[in-house]
Amino acid sequence: MGRSSSLISFSLTLLILFHGYTAQQWPNECQLDQLNALEPSQIIKSEGGRIEVWDHRAPQLRCSGFAFERFIIESQGLYLPTFFNAGKLTFVVHGRGLMGKVVPGCAETFMDSPVFQQGGQFGEGQGQGQSQGFRDMHQKVEHIRCGDTTATPPGVAQWIYNNGDEPLILVSAADIANNQNQLDRNLRPFLIAGNNPQGQQWLQGREQQPQNNIFSGFAPEILAQAFKIKLETAQQLQNQQDNRGNIVKVKGPFGVIRPPLRRGQGGQQPQEEGNGIEETLCTMRCTENLDDPSSADVYKPSLGYISTLNSYNLPILSYLRLSALRGSIRNNAMVLPQWNVNANAALYVTNGKAHIQMVNDNGQRVFDQEISSGQLIVVPQGFSVSKRATSDKFEWIEFKTNENAQINTLAGRTSVMTGLPLEVITNGFQISPQEARKVKFSTLETTLTHTSGGPMSYGRPRVEA
Amino acid sequence: MGRSSSLISFSLTLLILFHGYTAQQWPNECQLDQLNALEPSQIIKSEGGRIEVWDHRAPQLRCSGFAFERFIIESQGLYLPTFFNAGKLTFVVHGRGLMGKVVPGCAETFMDSPVFQQGGQFGEGQGQGQSQGFRDMHQKVEHIRCGDTTATPPGVAQWIYNNGDEPLILVSAADIANNQNQLDRNLRPFLIAGNNPQGQQWLQGREQQPQNNIFSGFAPEILAQAFKIKLETAQQLQNQQDNRGNIVKVKGPFGVIRPPLRRGQGGQQPQEEGNGIEETLCTMRCTENLDDPSSADVYKPSLGYISTLNSYNLPILSYLRLSALRGSIRNNAMVLPQWNVNANAALYVTNGKAHIQMVNDNGQRVFDQEISSGQLIVVPQGFSVSKRATSDKFEWIEFKTNENAQINTLAGRTSVMTGLPLEVITNGFQISPQEARKVKFSTLETTLTHTSGGPMSYGRPRVEA
Amino acid sequence: MGRSSSLISFSLTLLILFHGYTAQQWPNECQLDQLNALEPSQIIKSEGGRIEVWDHRAPQLRCSGFAFERFIIESQGLYLPTFFNAGKLTFVVHGRGLMGKVVPGCAETFMDSPVFQQGGQFGEGQGQGQSQGFRDMHQKVEHIRCGDTTATPPGVAQWIYNNGDEPLILVSAADIANNQNQLDRNLRPFLIAGNNPQGQQWLQGREQQPQNNIFSGFAPEILAQAFKIKLETAQQLQNQQDNRGNIVKVKGPFGVIRPPLRRGQGGQQPQEEGNGIEETLCTMRCTENLDDPSSADVYKPSLGYISTLNSYNLPILSYLRLSALRGSIRNNAMVLPQWNVNANAALYVTNGKAHIQMVNDNGQRVFDQEISSGQLIVVPQGFSVSKRATSDKFEWIEFKTNENAQINTLAGRTSVMTGLPLEVITNGFQISPQEARKVKFSTLETTLTHTSGGPMSYGRPRVEA
Repeated sequence: MGRSSSLISFSLTLLILFHGYTAQQWPNECQLDQLNALEPSQIIKSEGGRIEVWDHRAPQLRCSGFAFERFIIESQGLYLPTFFNAGKLTFVVHGRGLMGKVVPGCAETFMDSPVFQQGGQFGEGQGQGQSQGFRDMHQKVEHIRCGDTTATPPGVAQWIYNNGDEPLILVSAADIANNQNQLDRNLRPFLIAGNNPQGQQWLQGREQQPQNNIFSGFAPEILAQAFKIKLETAQQLQNQQDNRGNIVKVKGPFGVIRPPLRRGQGGQQPQEEGNGIEETLCTMRCTENLDDPSSADVYKPSLGYISTLNSYNLPILSYLRLSALRGSIRNNAMVLPQWNVNANAALYVTNGKAHIQMVNDNGQRVFDQEISSGQLIVVPQGFSVSKRATSDKFEWIEFKTNENAQINTLAGRTSVMTGLPLEVITNGFQISPQEARKVKFSTLETTLTHTSGGPMSYGRPRVEA
Repeated sequence: MGRSSSLISFSLTLLILFHGYTAQQWPNECQLDQLNALEPSQIIKSEGGRIEVWDHRAPQLRCSGFAFERFIIESQGLYLPTFFNAGKLTFVVHGRGLMGKVVPGCAETFMDSPVFQQGGQFGEGQGQGQSQGFRDMHQKVEHIRCGDTTATPPGVAQWIYNNGDEPLILVSAADIANNQNQLDRNLRPFLIAGNNPQGQQWLQGREQQPQNNIFSGFAPEILAQAFKIKLETAQQLQNQQDNRGNIVKVKGPFGVIRPPLRRGQGGQQPQEEGNGIEETLCTMRCTENLDDPSSADVYKPSLGYISTLNSYNLPILSYLRLSALRGSIRNNAMVLPQWNVNANAALYVTNGKAHIQMVNDNGQRVFDQEISSGQLIVVPQGFSVSKRATSDKFEWIEFKTNENAQINTLAGRTSVMTGLPLEVITNGFQISPQEARKVKFSTLETTLTHTSGGPMSYGRPRVEA
Repeated sequence: MGRSSSLISFSLTLLILFHGYTAQQWPNECQLDQLNALEPSQIIKSEGGRIEVWDHRAPQLRCSGFAFERFIIESQGLYLPTFFNAGKLTFVVHGRGLMGKVVPGCAETFMDSPVFQQGGQFGEGQGQGQSQGFRDMHQKVEHIRCGDTTATPPGVAQWIYNNGDEPLILVSAADIANNQNQLDRNLRPFLIAGNNPQGQQWLQGREQQPQNNIFSGFAPEILAQAFKIKLETAQQLQNQQDNRGNIVKVKGPFGVIRPPLRRGQGGQQPQEEGNGIEETLCTMRCTENLDDPSSADVYKPSLGYISTLNSYNLPILSYLRLSALRGSIRNNAMVLPQWNVNANAALYVTNGKAHIQMVNDNGQRVFDQEISSGQLIVVPQGFSVSKRATSDKFEWIEFKTNENAQINTLAGRTSVMTGLPLEVITNGFQISPQEARKVKFSTLETTLTHTSGGPMSYGRPRVEA
């Protein structure tokens, strides 16, 4: 008797265990009856900063297909070149720096040629007659600053250097569910240089091992032959004795060739004509600043602004199938309830606090909290969400899994309610035509509105019941 | 001894259990050795009609990625605005009605302006000088009738009103496997108004709960502020005390603004010039009638007709990645055996009966039954199927998971056999060249043929051995 | 005590068992810490040859989405018409033959009209006045020879005949993970003629049964009516008594209508004007030869050549989402380490041997072996790979899961290292600027290089440290 009952309880335990296991395994399970503000689950420390990784198997991220990371690069820190198996969008939250991407097959269009070089036995090139040599040439280097949003295709190596005095903070969202990622649903960094002694703890099913750069997997002899270098140099490419991680500290100056800052500091003239080759694919724009209110898509001085980045203003996004939205609202401003029509969204708070409510397909409130700077929340397709600033300023960046993500608002001048005939509203909600008309037409704003008491910015008195 | 054997049997039971469990979980498992005509598995009753839902986890639907529903809206019933997480095609099986979709960002182009309105404190708009007010304005409203097929993108709210005397019956197929659906493989209705006290029983893994509209998940204070309405009205938007379901009965007249019927009843003139704004996306055609034999793609007076709807004649389908085929054949007519080249199909019988045989990749007959009005059957990619009418008329609608679904016929003038050289046929089937020639050229029809005895419609005598 | 420990061990066993089971089930699991050269797992023998099938559930193929097959068709062997549920690319490894595809809806453009035919009661067609009849007409037939690569969409039946003296060997890769396949992740052949008495052993979850042609699943009466043939002929179409398999031996001549060989053997003139109908889709080019060094993309006389086939030179590939790369290198030549940016690759060795090293995202060497003629290896997205010929010649064909697969090289003139600024390299690898310059600029080749000792082909002395 006792034994059989223990067998039953044992079998039940097993059942629950396996149920849990297979449920966890499920790649895009979306039974989301309770959402949470998410914090990073792993911190990878390096000499020159740290990388904070969100667990992409958390139910919300698993459902939406996002992998999310935050990079904190200290002053003079260099995030070593790394590529991924998925396309991603990166937003600069704080600080400034230099960034380079190595696009396969594109030419080294940034070339330095001031002084004769002693070690100049390499590639004097076409200009040998006129110039006398060069110190270096490489692909495009860009200045990045707060608000910049940059797209990185899969397989394209990217490096970032903090040339400012403050930490450079970036957040980055990859869509591991779309077909740019041809592996399984894991974000896999491939390190060209550096390493990660802690290993990729977010990978399921792999025994934890330190992660090395991709050179370290090749026999040094092969590297020596491929690069036509000494075996010792080949061994150094493998970073085996290195434990500085993936973000290193640069000693001394960091003298890459780069154009002057956009703001024209230093009095230098743009030198664009000097760099020769222009190719369509290789010169494709990948970066756009979203922090300039003068190019906002929705703007109300007293409330805030919203800017969007999609494949119409950054065409490479149609290839990555991602887009972004930047919002900045003032205290007591509210983003009218809305839902994503054709995308999932990952919302990261860059500054301030807001109270957020979210409602799922069952009409249940699945999120009802204040979220604050540094937190992440997922808004799945169709889930309605309202945001209300609860600090002086609330600023966020939203990444969406569609190159032309559309929203639909529940309230406001262009909302679903305004598009419905009065009769549908009166019958659907059993309210009078007068009330229905108020529901349809009282709110004249499209996206942002005041929540209470604040100064009004309409040209006409607002109708309050 | 006895204990160990019981342990073994217990372990076997567990094994089978888990095998069954994981097999059920598998999202697009297609081991289809036996197909069935499918009936709805859940009926959601409402005040003004009912919604019948097929279980999308049934092996055939799971394999093909379809979610299938039937709407029966009684006279004066109003299907309240609802949107889904997937694109879908809806076919009107019976009756007539009015339908509206609220496309995000599009203007309210249907406007009424006959009389001055007492509650006219809202939005007098640009025309204030000339006109004197308006009773209502909303997005496009369409008349629908038997044979109409309409495309609804994900996230777009749709409502339907039965303004006829008979029940309005619609069937609707959504492709939950393509990337318009960014959630998991479940069809999720999001209710703008109404509710579903029975809950979404077809959702796996969620504890059954009544489904409410999306307003009911928000705090009433937020709704009051968003809509600038009284708290009481906000509470009414939540339909909390409502138990009329998702299809309600309209009391009194249903006076939405709509153009006159296409057939010109009532003598009114079209008023298209009155509605102002014309936008490409917002005026995209979403509806087409498939019941007019005069626009059929295949037509034989004595046999029947077949009409298709794909992205060439309804461009929005390239976005939804769906297409449709409408067929109507007479008694003893036969649709020649064929297979879907690049799509799965869901075949729903709207009228009459037919005997259907279907053959899988193993050459096994996996379906061999008569199916009749109201039944659904899935035809997976590559599976060959023959249809033979067994009642006076057999009519069906087929939804396909490709915007340009192609078929290939086994027999007939454009069939695979006609395209093969004689030598391939004689060698492949070990038949004489004379027989092979008959196999290739005896059937002159492409799609439809007589099965036996009926009147012949060829211009020349048919060769029978 | 003993019992409880046995219970624990039993539960652990179960856990491992299920862990293994669900891990195996996972459709695109990519935890690849160890790769192997793959051999076929099933051989399907037929009268006129054999089909060798790789197990698509092997971890590497499961991860990459490939299904891989090899066809060995003996002289006078006829691979009977078969279609699949996925698009595929086929490469002719050895021999020559004739090939036909039956594209749905396309006309029979190959027509014979020399002699009056006694059985000429069928379709004299438009030319009745002038000509006197025809022996046969069918769709396009192509000559295929070593190096030909041909694209076959899903649902399109294809047959192949060996009209040479040596075995005709083909390898074929299908992408069962892209959306051309709308069923589950299995490659399913649908046989128009022939059969497979061994059954599809590679299908999981289906009880093993002999595979018959698709006619055998229909009732003979239906076939007789559809084809308007005798019941006996209909029964013969079902190949029930046949046990010759899917590749049969042709007795006597195989007289299909075909144009003369491209090489002009036999002195016949091209007769293209005779065939009438020209349609865009029906005349789309599907085949290209990759063995002609004169059209190579990378070519060094002393090292070898590489040719690619993508949607730019074969537009149908954009529909199938596949591309191919053909390589041929000499002894001691090396393909510089590289990775696939946006695709998985399946590499099949057609001739010779090579030593291959491959490195995963963790920097681990996951493959380090010699592979030789007839072996297959998968190169997942992002995994770096180096190839070094270890026999007189090493030749391979690579299939990739992207219509425009891109690579990035680790070393060489257009490599990622050359695109990086010196400072990134010196800081990343802690090497001197002199060494970094060598890493960047020593190797002047882009793709192929000598490994050691062999004759140099540069115009200038190579710098070795």
